[in-house]
This record gives sequence, structure tokens and C-alpha cells, in this order.
Amino acid sequence: MTQQTSYNTGKGAGETVGVALLGFGTVGQAAYRLMNEYADEFTERAGGPIEIRGVAVSDLSRPREGVDPDLLTDDAMSLVLRDDIDLVVEVIGGIDLPRKLVLAALRAGKSVVTANKALVAAHADELAEAADASGADLFFEAAVAAAIPVVGPLRRSLAGDRVNRVMGIVNGTTNFILDAMDESGASYDEMLAEATRLGYAEADPTADVDGYDAASKAAILASIAFHTRVSADDVYREGVREITAADIASAKAVGCTIKLLALCERLVDSDGKESVSARVYPALVPRNHPLASVSQSFNAVFVEAEAAGRLMFYGNGAGGNPTASAVLGDVIGASRNIVLGGRAPGESVYASLPIASFGSIDTRYHVVMHVKDQVGVLADVAKCFANRGISLKTVRQEGSENGARLVVVTHMAREDDLEKTVADVSSIDTVLSVERVLRMEGDD
Amino acid sequence: MTQQTSYNTGKGAGETVGVALLGFGTVGQAAYRLMNEYADEFTERAGGPIEIRGVAVSDLSRPREGVDPDLLTDDAMSLVLRDDIDLVVEVIGGIDLPRKLVLAALRAGKSVVTANKALVAAHADELAEAADASGADLFFEAAVAAAIPVVGPLRRSLAGDRVNRVMGIVNGTTNFILDAMDESGASYDEMLAEATRLGYAEADPTADVDGYDAASKAAILASIAFHTRVSADDVYREGVREITAADIASAKAVGCTIKLLALCERLVDSDGKESVSARVYPALVPRNHPLASVSQSFNAVFVEAEAAGRLMFYGNGAGGNPTASAVLGDVIGASRNIVLGGRAPGESVYASLPIASFGSIDTRYHVVMHVKDQVGVLADVAKCFANRGISLKTVRQEGSENGARLVVVTHMAREDDLEKTVADVSSIDTVLSVERVLRMEGDD
Repeated sequence: MTQQTSYNTGKGAGETVGVALLGFGTVGQAAYRLMNEYADEFTERAGGPIEIRGVAVSDLSRPREGVDPDLLTDDAMSLVLRDDIDLVVEVIGGIDLPRKLVLAALRAGKSVVTANKALVAAHADELAEAADASGADLFFEAAVAAAIPVVGPLRRSLAGDRVNRVMGIVNGTTNFILDAMDESGASYDEMLAEATRLGYAEADPTADVDGYDAASKAAILASIAFHTRVSADDVYREGVREITAADIASAKAVGCTIKLLALCERLVDSDGKESVSARVYPALVPRNHPLASVSQSFNAVFVEAEAAGRLMFYGNGAGGNPTASAVLGDVIGASRNIVLGGRAPGESVYASLPIASFGSIDTRYHVVMHVKDQVGVLADVAKCFANRGISLKTVRQEGSENGARLVVVTHMAREDDLEKTVADVSSIDTVLSVERVLRMEGDD
Repeated sequence: MTQQTSYNTGKGAGETVGVALLGFGTVGQAAYRLMNEYADEFTERAGGPIEIRGVAVSDLSRPREGVDPDLLTDDAMSLVLRDDIDLVVEVIGGIDLPRKLVLAALRAGKSVVTANKALVAAHADELAEAADASGADLFFEAAVAAAIPVVGPLRRSLAGDRVNRVMGIVNGTTNFILDAMDESGASYDEMLAEATRLGYAEADPTADVDGYDAASKAAILASIAFHTRVSADDVYREGVREITAADIASAKAVGCTIKLLALCERLVDSDGKESVSARVYPALVPRNHPLASVSQSFNAVFVEAEAAGRLMFYGNGAGGNPTASAVLGDVIGASRNIVLGGRAPGESVYASLPIASFGSIDTRYHVVMHVKDQVGVLADVAKCFANRGISLKTVRQEGSENGARLVVVTHMAREDDLEKTVADVSSIDTVLSVERVLRMEGDD
């Protein structure tokens, strides 16, 4: 049974919602500007005026344009706890400080809107408990794919369905890099430099290129889709640093492009027992799959549900304005409940499905081997796959400088079995090395 | 100010929601089956059990499989008004009967979920008034593009943004026909017959092929997107009956395909005055536009918002299961409010923008003329366009049986001006006829 048993009854139509804006970076500035620009419309939509009553920044001495200086403070906690604050909008980033502030707000019965995927993915449990205890709302549409409505559609629109799979391109930086590599044939390092120059990648790109950002989003998506608590630590993760121009070319040769995917899957074993897999890795995607054509820094989330079938949501997954759009949608929703009463659906983890081990997932594989150019190699390699029960869809041999490259694409196979097969193949005398194993996702 | 000032406080967590299902066709049967199959999960998601307590059908003598016979009744009104019914699910179709039943339910304070686009588009005003007066919820996600979440994302996720344009493929039957014509080069009549044979078109295809269905959806989308009441009568409408294989070939020649579009636009005149345009017509769409690749009976809705930028929602726009998915998402939402209290955002029409006359819209045009094959024709035609201030993007001349075909694509021009230009062109001696004017939408 849901924990939600008490509802706030609302301040009453026409009452003002006092907002604390925590953070005044790109997203904070956009949200501030739009909230002022759309103030009259927001009043109509929320049932009462929404007023920014304080803006918390880390450094008061820095000049800030376009903000009423009387609103600025560097004491975020005092602002959050002020009696005239009903709603806290957290767009600081990081984990420790926002966690303290968001928890304090929720415990004080103040609703929170956050764009912070790392916070939500790492601390969903205590945030949800605090919100449920006080009856406050916790919204985070902006935490996944920015402007693209994903959290709301999964939580509300698909509430009457059974989601089996969510597959998304949820990191704009890596999509920009991989798309540029695909377009130009250039190397990862060159395209990372390009992304940095154009502002798509940060000075330290770790969170993006090593898949941490996508893993946080995968955890959030899996939690909502499967009504199960999935944290970032539960997500298997591989980044894109090692993707080479040769990998992209290899993918092209089999009609694919390479995308960094966040995959959330409901697994059912032979006894009918269900579990959940959440994983992030670069994978080959067939060019005619809708996700293959997601270019530049765009994001898209593909959902398969029992009754709805296949759905896709596409749009801007990053940037000040798109992120602010999602934040402000939540601000309206939270404000409406503060004014008129009611509470949005909160965390729903009743299903409590176990997290599947990564070795137990099934997918297809694209394996590149460097082999001696002599008779019988193919037969030896094929035998290794057959011995583990893995059938091959295509086999391709290419000449290379010293020896040959053998490229196989498998049918569906279990990760554990594939790993053992790779070990087997590596031990063949005529196989110089297994250069690369990449997974292949998306069957149309 | 919103009219919503009072909220129901909820029956209390764990209390049962009594549901009346009106209609047991494809969608009703799917909804019934899934509600039973997912009963335990729905209880968790809604905060209390959801129980179907009656199913209204028109003919009790017809054998019905898979439904508890004790639940069946042919007296829908008595069922709706029964004390143990909290929520009414209307999937009958048509307008008059459902209107009476839905109004009776809302007036009695019972929430309603409907998939009925014609009803919502024709009677939004009285339905909203009845819901607002009693505090009941009125949900209709399934009325637009079935399983694809569109109403929810526009109403909630984009509540903090400013939507400027909604452009959708919202009728699966016509998309199937046009896509098949594009693929095969066959005629409209052949592909309509094929659609009928495969169950994509009804015996009387009028509602689909003449654009009435799409017009209802355009009215609903425009109402929500622009916070303005737009009814089906406000929507300019042209169907697809007159689209020929030659039109499709002509579109291909300029890199386009033809789609039946539902277009909702915020117009701003030179004085900054805003108005709303809602229209349905077949239009040329460039092949690299995301909507061009929406094949078969799939639907997609493209949204442009100020801060979010461009978004697209894609999926199954028809069928029993996909429609039931949307209906049941609403059933969970409505049930949650019945159990735990609160109310979903209802109709929001505060903006009350005027409806723009069709003649005042701006778009691009693809005009096919049958002309005499002699010197000077092109100059005469071009002069007509120039006289009305319409500039041409491309001009193409093709030989034809007697004379020649002249095909021009214009830059953005006003509908009124284009109409006058066509009259001017028609009066030129060397122009035998203006065969076809089609609009062109989607600039990337």
C-alpha cells in the first residue's frame, strides 16, 4: 500500500507561493527570467501568484545581472527555512550541499523541485521518506533529459500500463561526440576537444564521458518504470572514452551507428521470476532504429510498454532554457498543490524487484578479433561460440596490416556466456587478440 | 483566476474506487482485461483497489466473452448514478449519448475518463463547467493519439513554458493510406481499399479521410497548448480524398512526402496581438523532418515551445490496447484523487485568444498548373505571384500530354494572398488550369 495517507489541503485559491531559488547558474538564471516574464500566466496556471523571495548563491561578491540584489543571499539554509518560503527550487548541482538543503525543505513540509539527477539517483530513499513524512511534493522532471517530458509520462501517463523496457540517449555531450565521430570519421579525442570548444563538454568531462551522468538517469528511469528502488550504484556502467574511429567504421559496415545508451529492462527468468536490469554502455544501434537518427546533443527516450507498445520522446536534453522549461513545469505543478491542495504521485517502489546481475542479461554482440591470416581460424573461432551456445548472425573477415580482422555479430546471448567465449577465443593460438566487444541494441 | 477553488479530500487510503465502464468494444474490452490483470499493481499505484462494478452495453442479448455477466447492463444512466460508482470510464463513441452520461456523472461529482475526441472537442465548455462545479476530474489522454502521452505533457510538463506550435500526425487511417501511396505509387482509392481490408479504415471512412477526427484532436491540442477554448468548428479542415498519385510524385520531386497534419499555431500580428490558428490539411513535409518518417498507422506530435525548443512524441495512435493504456493511466490518476484527495488540472482557458481567420495564416505553397507549352508562360505566372508579394523558391516545368505542367514552390506567404494569386493565374490565357494547391509545412 502506498505510504501517502495525508494531503495538504492548500493555502487557498489566490494565495501566493513563496519560492526560494537555490543556485543562479545557467538554469537558475533562465528559470528566474522566465518566472518573471511569465508571471501573469503562471498565476493563472497555478491558482495563485508564484513569487521568488530569495536566491541563494555561493559567492555574494560576484556581480549578478538581471536579479533583484535584495533577493540574494549566501545563506541557503536560512532561506530554505524562512516562514515565507513554500517551495524550494534546487539548481545548484553537486550532492552534499543540495542534499542537506532539500532534506531540510522536505522535512519542513516545503515542496521541492530539483534538476539534480546525481542527488535523486543517489539519495532517492531518504528524499522520498522525508517527502512522504511531511506530505511535501518532490519533483524532478528536469533531472532526466531536461525539456523532454519523461518522468511525468512514465509516472502518470503510463501508470495504467506495464513498462518492459526503457532505452534512452540521455547524455547530450556523449551523443554530440559520437555523432560527430560518425559524421566525420574523426577520433574520440578530436571530437571531445570540439565538444569542449563548443561548450557541449565541461573542462572535466568525466561525469559525461564515463557514463556517470547517464547512469544516474538510468537509475531514475528504472525506479519509476519498474516501481522499484534503483540507485546509481545498481547501474552497470561503461563510458565512451575507448570508442575509436575504427569502432565507428566497424559499426557502419554492419549498418549501425554507436550511441551511449541508458537501458532499463524488466527481465523474466524461466521460472517467471522478475528482476530489473539498469545499464549504461556504448552500443551499436541499427541505422533504421528511431534512436539512430538522434543527432548532435539531442536526447531521446524509447519506451516499450505492454499495452501502449513502442513510444518515443525526443527533444533537447540539456541547456539552460530547456532545463528551466522542465523545472518550471514542476514549479507550476508543485505550486498548484500548495495553493489548491493535493499531492503529486511520489516515489512508488512497491514492486521491489531484485536487481539482476549484469552477467544474466541477454543482448547481441559485435566482436572484433585480430587473427592470423591462415586457414582454419574462422572454424576455430566459430567453434568457441558454438560451444557456449551462442549462434552467429554475421561473420566478416577483413585484411589488416599483420594478419586479419575477424568481425562477428551474434544473435541474442547471455553476457556471462559471451564473457567466457571471449576468454576461450583469446586462448586460440591463431587469435592474436580480441580487440573489442560492443553490444548491439534495438532490433528495428 | 482559475475556477478551481474546492477539492475533494479523498475517501481515504485503502478505500475502493467503484468504476462504471461504459462501452465494451475494442477499447472497453482491452481496458476491462487489463484492469483485472493488473489489479494488484493498480491498487498500489492508486492508493486503493479499483473495482469495475458495472459494464454498460447497448445490446444485452449479444454474447460477450471474458466479462462477468452480472456486471452487464443496458441502462448506462442508472449505472452512472449508482451510489457505489465513483469513476465513469466512457468508451462508447458518438456524441449525444456519451454527452448525457458524462455530464450526469460530472454533475454528480463522479470523475470521468473518456477516450472520446469528438465529445471533448464539441462540448469542452459544458463538460468543464460541470467538472468545475462539482470538483470532479475529467481526463481524456486517450482522445488524442491514443497511447502517446500528449495531453498530460502539454498540460503538466509544459505548464511552465510557452507553446508556440503543435504539429501532429494524429490520424492513423490517413497516415496509413498516404504512407502506402508514397511507398507504392498506388492511387488513393486502391490504398483506401487496402486500409479497409486490413482494418485500418472503417466501412464509412468519412471521419478519418475528411479530417473530422484530426480536427477534433487539433481542437483539443490547441485548447490545451494555448489556454484558449478551441472547438472542432474553429478548425479549418481539408481531408485527403483528393490526393492523387500525381500529387505524391510531385511531392517526391521536391524532396517531400504528403502527410495529413493537425496544426495549432500561436500567431502574433504586427501590433503584437496574439491569435490562435487550428487547421487540418494534407501538406508536403520535407523528408528529413521527423514527421516525414512516421510510417503506417503511427502517430506523432511535434511541439515547439519557447524554452523547451522542439519536442516530439511518437507511438501508436490507435488500437484497443494502446487506447486502453492511455485510458488506464487516467483511471489511475483519477482513482488516486478519489482515494487520496486532490484534483488534476482541469480546463484552462484564461488566455481566451481569438481564433485567427484561415486567410491570415502564413505558410508555403506547392502549386501545380497545367499550361500551354509556349514561350512567356513562366514569365506571366511569375508576375502574378510577384504582384501579390509572393516570392518563389523553386519553379519546375514538366512536359505533359497536351501542354506542360508548371510546378512552383513559394516562400512563406499569406493564405489570402495565395488565393488571390491563384485566381490571377487562372485568368491567364496560357494557363489551362491550376490543378492543385498544397501547403508545405516543417522547415527542417
